[in-house]
Amino acid sequence: MLYEYTIPASIRALTQLNACLDKAAGFADTKKVEFPVLLNSRLIADQLPMVRQIQIACDTAKLGAARLTGKEAPSHEDKESTLAEAKARIDSTIAYLNTFKPEDFKGAEERKVTTPRWEGKWLTGLEYAQHHVLPNLYFHVTTAYAILRANGVDIGKKDYLGAMPYKN
Amino acid sequence: MLYEYTIPASIRALTQLNACLDKAAGFADTKKVEFPVLLNSRLIADQLPMVRQIQIACDTAKLGAARLTGKEAPSHEDKESTLAEAKARIDSTIAYLNTFKPEDFKGAEERKVTTPRWEGKWLTGLEYAQHHVLPNLYFHVTTAYAILRANGVDIGKKDYLGAMPYKN
Repeated sequence: MLYEYTIPASIRALTQLNACLDKAAGFADTKKVEFPVLLNSRLIADQLPMVRQIQIACDTAKLGAARLTGKEAPSHEDKESTLAEAKARIDSTIAYLNTFKPEDFKGAEERKVTTPRWEGKWLTGLEYAQHHVLPNLYFHVTTAYAILRANGVDIGKKDYLGAMPYKN
Repeated sequence: MLYEYTIPASIRALTQLNACLDKAAGFADTKKVEFPVLLNSRLIADQLPMVRQIQIACDTAKLGAARLTGKEAPSHEDKESTLAEAKARIDSTIAYLNTFKPEDFKGAEERKVTTPRWEGKWLTGLEYAQHHVLPNLYFHVTTAYAILRANGVDIGKKDYLGAMPYKN
């Protein structure tokens, strides 16, 4: 069940972030703004710029899946400086998430999860997914969205949510 | 398990939103800004103001719990215009969420969920929680946070996440 809790939601969130970047690219073209200007935009000076929001969103999803399943995540260098590089970072993360299967998450709820920053402290897998992975993922995706929105990019909540799998 | 998926996360997110409003109240006092100015702030003109972000975050959590369990949610009038009213709206929503027990969610994953807006279409409870409730909840909480942040309120991601239940 922790697979269902994290993987489809992470893939959807990053796919929609990519769609927002595509709209932002159209906006930048129209306004004759170099795309790195948007990548380096912030809501306020003491906040991380959009490119860091993208990188952290990707790493939250990637490390979340790896730590919940006891695997080693591939590393990324955080040196994206163009639209193509930012999109490639997201695509690479989505491809990694797609390698996971529900059975990889067997026992994940009770797994002791820790990170180098936590100095030996730990959370159960369920707590980590619930109180760390998803809130952080959505926080950074929404903050990237907010930075684009504040710049006037024509995106709305549907671009963030994506199409719902409605049934009739 | 859908209880674990939605209720503790919703309570935590709204509790932290309330904590952010407390910091915003201190900021407003110091800057001699009337609190409703913050409630009516937006990142850009064609976006909903902070008070609507708070109301929608509350309703997303409230209606999510009600629809997943087949209950009727209490209604709120969306007329908050002061700090005390905004905080009371959040507190009332948290109190409602606290009435739910894991057994209320029996069968919730397969339950057909619909809303008046969906014109007869539906999602399974799992899809609704995964692709609608949590992404919307975190979207509106983070957007409220972003509006405060852009105004210079001294909040950071820890105020949004809250204390992790670390174990040694």
